Amino acid sequence: MIAVYGMSTSGNCHKVRLLLEQLGREYRWIEVDSANGATRTPEYLARNPNGKVPMLELEDGRVLVESDAILCYLAEGTDYLPTEAWQRAQALSWMFFEQYSHEPYVAVARFIRGWTPLDSPRRADLPRLIERGEQALAVMEKHLASAQWFTGAGYGVADIALFAYTDRAEDGGFDLGKFPLVSAWLARVRAMPGFTPMPAVSDEVAARLASS
Amino acid sequence: MIAVYGMSTSGNCHKVRLLLEQLGREYRWIEVDSANGATRTPEYLARNPNGKVPMLELEDGRVLVESDAILCYLAEGTDYLPTEAWQRAQALSWMFFEQYSHEPYVAVARFIRGWTPLDSPRRADLPRLIERGEQALAVMEKHLASAQWFTGAGYGVADIALFAYTDRAEDGGFDLGKFPLVSAWLARVRAMPGFTPMPAVSDEVAARLASS
Repeated sequence: MIAVYGMSTSGNCHKVRLLLEQLGREYRWIEVDSANGATRTPEYLARNPNGKVPMLELEDGRVLVESDAILCYLAEGTDYLPTEAWQRAQALSWMFFEQYSHEPYVAVARFIRGWTPLDSPRRADLPRLIERGEQALAVMEKHLASAQWFTGAGYGVADIALFAYTDRAEDGGFDLGKFPLVSAWLARVRAMPGFTPMPAVSDEVAARLASS
Repeated sequence: MIAVYGMSTSGNCHKVRLLLEQLGREYRWIEVDSANGATRTPEYLARNPNGKVPMLELEDGRVLVESDAILCYLAEGTDYLPTEAWQRAQALSWMFFEQYSHEPYVAVARFIRGWTPLDSPRRADLPRLIERGEQALAVMEKHLASAQWFTGAGYGVADIALFAYTDRAEDGGFDLGKFPLVSAWLARVRAMPGFTPMPAVSDEVAARLASS
């Protein structure tokens, strides 16, 4: 059986879980506490020198890293990945957008608010992260003025990639009320067959998010 | 004929030029001065709301953005993109690594040193960018201990994606002498058929790089 090494409350990791649940595939989930150094051990770095989760492991021990590459691999040959070259390229384009222009702001703001001490100097970055993250959400809002999905004619890998952290954007201090088309798209994703929500954060993280 | 909107001295843009030259494809290059706001005009934003280069334009006017998505699209059906699913996923994984863990440090350090004033407050970020960029170069060095290329058995899209800014890393203040396998791989890329170097930066940028 394939295995996923991941931190359940990480959006990058939840992408993989969500697709596997929607595909109805069997998998083992190995919880890795990446917020507390578990991806920096010699054993983990020997398998993934970049020291990140998620990591997909095949039955024969080979591994694949980078959440969006894992999504593409698992979705190959299914309706979640377009087969037509231009549409596939557009889906991939949104996945690169997610990793370069969205995740470093929307996800990092959530991480700082939920996983760093209330007096962390990193909190000084939050106004800049909110500004840049809102720019990314505005790009998504503009796309949704003439499209239902990011992957193509239907829901798929690019929607899963963008959903993970957008759905938790309020944890990072974002006001999704400013982005009504994004909010409606989030609701469409949540209504898809096999949808699985991200597991709840710990009480400690929830308390920090409430105090931030 | 297809067209590429790009800034010639941007590594993200040069990736597209390099592949097109190696494919022997005809294309128009439309120079866009993204360092001075040319991607922030209403006309440009109407075509690419994320306001970045490169942008590929087909004969019928449709556009594709994100450098690594453009590489995958142009390489489809050629030897530059693996067809086998696992190897294709590994190539894609290196491209996501490039955009998330490499470009934001290696390319941004170069941009700050070459394109911002010598007294820019952004220069305070350089030590952190060098540290993180060296981590990315170390991950590449480790891979090259047991492989010749990043794309698969042969040279291809992931090598092009990683080459662009790695080859200019010294502009950002990196010492490639610390990474002998990376240096040897750069030389292998430069020796590939159809290889085209990045155009030289302006005298103004060259002077800033020399003074940094």
